[in-house]
Amino acid sequence: MSNGPNPEKASMIVFSGDMDKVMAALIIANGAAAFDIEVTMFFTFWGLKAIQKGNLTGKGVMGRMLGVMNRGGLKRIGPSRLNMGGMGRWMFKKMMKKRNVTPLPEMLRQAQELGVKMIACEMSMQVMEIGKEDLIDGIQVGGVGSYLAVASESKFSLFI
Amino acid sequence: MSNGPNPEKASMIVFSGDMDKVMAALIIANGAAAFDIEVTMFFTFWGLKAIQKGNLTGKGVMGRMLGVMNRGGLKRIGPSRLNMGGMGRWMFKKMMKKRNVTPLPEMLRQAQELGVKMIACEMSMQVMEIGKEDLIDGIQVGGVGSYLAVASESKFSLFI
Amino acid sequence: MSNGPNPEKASMIVFSGDMDKVMAALIIANGAAAFDIEVTMFFTFWGLKAIQKGNLTGKGVMGRMLGVMNRGGLKRIGPSRLNMGGMGRWMFKKMMKKRNVTPLPEMLRQAQELGVKMIACEMSMQVMEIGKEDLIDGIQVGGVGSYLAVASESKFSLFI
Repeated sequence: MSNGPNPEKASMIVFSGDMDKVMAALIIANGAAAFDIEVTMFFTFWGLKAIQKGNLTGKGVMGRMLGVMNRGGLKRIGPSRLNMGGMGRWMFKKMMKKRNVTPLPEMLRQAQELGVKMIACEMSMQVMEIGKEDLIDGIQVGGVGSYLAVASESKFSLFI
Repeated sequence: MSNGPNPEKASMIVFSGDMDKVMAALIIANGAAAFDIEVTMFFTFWGLKAIQKGNLTGKGVMGRMLGVMNRGGLKRIGPSRLNMGGMGRWMFKKMMKKRNVTPLPEMLRQAQELGVKMIACEMSMQVMEIGKEDLIDGIQVGGVGSYLAVASESKFSLFI
Repeated sequence: MSNGPNPEKASMIVFSGDMDKVMAALIIANGAAAFDIEVTMFFTFWGLKAIQKGNLTGKGVMGRMLGVMNRGGLKRIGPSRLNMGGMGRWMFKKMMKKRNVTPLPEMLRQAQELGVKMIACEMSMQVMEIGKEDLIDGIQVGGVGSYLAVASESKFSLFI
């Protein structure tokens, strides 16, 4: 937040909507922001789920079908492995709580408070029929150019 | 293509053969190339499917089995999620068309026209019994060293 | 190992515990190390399996359940695709052997001999109830800060 005139930058493409990968992305983002690195997260494809409010989305028949099958929101996403119909999600939350790991929605809030810039991929939103009103507050909408502009200046850039 | 004497560089390892990840890789590659960045894509493991012609491959019993189970070609690959035996692929293509997103084979052609350098991983080709004649035109074959040489000079390098 | 006073650096987050992705990570690491690049691998989440001895882990009920379902060790992990209940793992090993590809445990040993620095993610170890005694020798334990410190100085940094 209080970075100097030429702060270091880092960027991430959050492509995955899996709970564990989104968590890894946020831990890196918040860690980097705490080190005064200017972080930009570009959410695309399934990664949009991490910044959706969680309501049903879609306008056409297929868009609405996708909205049901691929419902967004941090409370709904499960891990990439061992999800077992939601049991994995429940189990991971429990194990994280036991070890005092910050819950995912709070990690996201922290990221926003630390000034992590979040961009939602415009093309993915159009294809998946997800509107700006379906996203949480504080998200910009942009194209691949907005990622590339910051990726070129980044100390590191990850595809997650 | 008309980059200056010391153009910026970017590189990607395309490890995944999923339709959605290959699409993300090509969107980034074409976007970067349009910004006069010299892009190198290194296709390895399942990522080889994106640059295969689509014919059956393999010489030995196992190689031919793998060729059937893991058949390449941009028209055959499905998304990493919600593929549902090919229905997802069909649905995504339809939703992309509705929003005028360039189809995948055309994106690949554009990338080649924009001068994106494509390298197929030699070791993966040998292990999976995929020959140079199984790949589309304009692909170089190389080892991990050819990736590392460009990765060290890249503004950003992604593992997709 | 015999890097000069300011060697080039590269870093990787090994998030995945899939055999094929771990192999890709080690091939890149060993290739880079052979080019005198100082490589740091940060193993987190499922990636910890690659540096586990392979014994059963966990203390509480859920930790032990996870230890069974997600048992570590390079000999147990299977590929991200076409594993088919272990058949894929067997088939890949066979195809790799036929082409004289170094087996995974030997690749890991080579990486350590080449001076590749390996860090296990402390938080993941705590959440998954994996102890230092469950890891192979020569692994440091550290937080996200230890990754970020090297990522900022890296020529390239990958999320695998």
